[in-house]
Amino acid sequence: MTDLDLLAPNTERLSARIAELAGFHDSTFPGWSREVFSEPYRASRQWVREQMADAGLDVVIDAAGNIVGRLPGRRGGGPALVTGSHTDTVRQGGRFDGIVGVMAGIEVARRLRETGVQLEHDLVVVDFLGEEANDFGISCMGSRAIAGVLRPDHLDRTDGTGLRLGDALAGFGLDPDAALRQGWKSGDVHAYVELHVEQGPLLEQSGTAIGVVTAIAGIDRLLVHFAGLAGHAGTTPMADRRDALVSAAAAVLTVERVGCGAPVHGVATSGHIESSPGSMGVITDEARLWAEIRSVDRTWLHGARKQIVDEITAETRARGVDIDVDWLTDQDPVPTSGLVQDVIAQAADHLGDSWKAVPSGAGHDAAHLSRLGPMGMIFVPSVGGRSHCPEELTAAEDIARGAHVLASTLITLDRREEVRHA
Amino acid sequence: MTDLDLLAPNTERLSARIAELAGFHDSTFPGWSREVFSEPYRASRQWVREQMADAGLDVVIDAAGNIVGRLPGRRGGGPALVTGSHTDTVRQGGRFDGIVGVMAGIEVARRLRETGVQLEHDLVVVDFLGEEANDFGISCMGSRAIAGVLRPDHLDRTDGTGLRLGDALAGFGLDPDAALRQGWKSGDVHAYVELHVEQGPLLEQSGTAIGVVTAIAGIDRLLVHFAGLAGHAGTTPMADRRDALVSAAAAVLTVERVGCGAPVHGVATSGHIESSPGSMGVITDEARLWAEIRSVDRTWLHGARKQIVDEITAETRARGVDIDVDWLTDQDPVPTSGLVQDVIAQAADHLGDSWKAVPSGAGHDAAHLSRLGPMGMIFVPSVGGRSHCPEELTAAEDIARGAHVLASTLITLDRREEVRHA
Repeated sequence: MTDLDLLAPNTERLSARIAELAGFHDSTFPGWSREVFSEPYRASRQWVREQMADAGLDVVIDAAGNIVGRLPGRRGGGPALVTGSHTDTVRQGGRFDGIVGVMAGIEVARRLRETGVQLEHDLVVVDFLGEEANDFGISCMGSRAIAGVLRPDHLDRTDGTGLRLGDALAGFGLDPDAALRQGWKSGDVHAYVELHVEQGPLLEQSGTAIGVVTAIAGIDRLLVHFAGLAGHAGTTPMADRRDALVSAAAAVLTVERVGCGAPVHGVATSGHIESSPGSMGVITDEARLWAEIRSVDRTWLHGARKQIVDEITAETRARGVDIDVDWLTDQDPVPTSGLVQDVIAQAADHLGDSWKAVPSGAGHDAAHLSRLGPMGMIFVPSVGGRSHCPEELTAAEDIARGAHVLASTLITLDRREEVRHA
Repeated sequence: MTDLDLLAPNTERLSARIAELAGFHDSTFPGWSREVFSEPYRASRQWVREQMADAGLDVVIDAAGNIVGRLPGRRGGGPALVTGSHTDTVRQGGRFDGIVGVMAGIEVARRLRETGVQLEHDLVVVDFLGEEANDFGISCMGSRAIAGVLRPDHLDRTDGTGLRLGDALAGFGLDPDAALRQGWKSGDVHAYVELHVEQGPLLEQSGTAIGVVTAIAGIDRLLVHFAGLAGHAGTTPMADRRDALVSAAAAVLTVERVGCGAPVHGVATSGHIESSPGSMGVITDEARLWAEIRSVDRTWLHGARKQIVDEITAETRARGVDIDVDWLTDQDPVPTSGLVQDVIAQAADHLGDSWKAVPSGAGHDAAHLSRLGPMGMIFVPSVGGRSHCPEELTAAEDIARGAHVLASTLITLDRREEVRHA
């Protein structure tokens, strides 16, 4: 029996811990709500800290609120093997997104201690602060701070109540100014590997146990403003109209069509339409459409942007409606390390798990950690591909398989002197 | 010179009165806002009452708030010739919609007195309360009360603040219970003729002075509920989506297409879309679309309803989205009296004004008055077809031409013993 086999997780314990963490939630909403800065999140973090300490990790909470647990390696310092994820949820979310990566990381540490296997490198398990999208408009707060890309203007962003993010962090007992200066150095990370639920249907549909993530999708967002002409809905002939809502509706279908024309890993989604005056009997003179495109393929993203702008501009102008399109790149596509991909796939093969290469359509803390060292991600199947909803589910055995692949991957990477340029 | 020529209005006086009434408006909004129950509306009604009295009319305000001015005819009682319109406006509306009909009615009364022409029938000029759409969801309050179709459940409707219409009427110094019982009898009206701005472009585009209204459009409203499935916008493949917003957008285009396929007098308009959750990164699971179709042609309305339901149901189900469609007939099409049409057209011919038969896409108090006797409407051109906006404009000479045709029409109808069955 090799170390790889020895490190099989205790499936029952891992499941119990995940269920226990789910107990911390805001019960005024259906499903599981543990939003960043909420009381249930505050309470759950104390529990996570205790779990890490109980697993033998030295725990610190950094200035940005990341819970960082360290298991010293034989070398006593130098680049660390890092794993982790997040324990905050979206409102009315589920019990697995993020949570699985943190609890599996702690389980790996427990198994290392229980089996007496010692790594060369320090193993660092991180519960990153506030990964999910929030009212401040900035996801992945904690991993951005560790990657050194949290900026002063981020702290000045406000939520719907006018609260500054900086003040929210301070109110949560953190040090926002120090958070801006606490970025890790590139040499601090030997490799970063994150276990996560897929949040999509590809693994389940193909009956595959393990997803080897090839890249984390880039996200381009667009806000389209349509300016038509108000008019009486009873008296204005169809041919004389400049109806901004009709133009916005046509744009929604164009966005969908461009998404459907994408290669496997491209999607395009309209978020919502706002229009005015919005009264019955009046033709809409102003409409705004929020939409986004995502792909791991930067070339496709560029082409899709151009296609969307060209097509909706032409079809909007043909209706006599003026149009203004603003694009914002929310995140560039981030490829994972080829070597980490190979190590994950070999671990799955060794453990007898089926695997396939998959993209990540969702953003992850891993995208930020990739600035510090070679990065890889392991996906496990989501039932029905559902996520960010109470129905979110991954079977206990599937999580255990993923945790075992994570442990094996970390051990293999630990034994490589240099991952970066491999 | 016949009486018809004698009754030419004083153009300058008529324009001055219209401008004076425009002075009563809520200046916190752009344009002209004199909404029902507002302070400017309350103040303007005192002024309208004085104008009627000054023109020699006996003025009463009925329980529903209609300002009713009567000029006794030679017969002293019996069926009356009725004219009028409304002086409330939509928010950020114009200076002519409704107002022209009330002020022209008063001008006709002044000219009758100035020229010593006495009618056989009483002439009644009415400023109907609250014709425009409002937050209580019931237009034409005053003319409904006179037609005897204001119902107790109308009084229980509430605005956005929870205020009951009945309480709003009482707070405006009116008597809502009495308003329910004050419907006129059918024999009270010899004929009803209303002068109004067209609010559409047909007269201006064809260079025509007078519109002889053939019918007031019926309005069918629809509320469509789309139920899809929420999902992660990054991880859900395009082919697996059940996006309610895309279905709603497709329905907007279907509504437009059905409207464009209508005969001259059919229009179809989407008012707005509400969708949830409305967050970036999440596929829309619920959407609601409010839309309406209008036509003077009942057969087309029926066909259009069926076509819209069939097409959007098919296209929505094809996307795996559930659909529920509710229709509400807001108003049936109301044809005008053929005889009144003829009299209006002859008056225009006699006065040397070009005329054409036109539909009314908008609703009017006249639609309700048609329950009480033969009804006709005279339209004058709207610059650019604009209405319900500050840019609403009809030239002073065009209004004067309309007022003259109104006077001539009333005199001709006065001399007919019986209009109803002609």
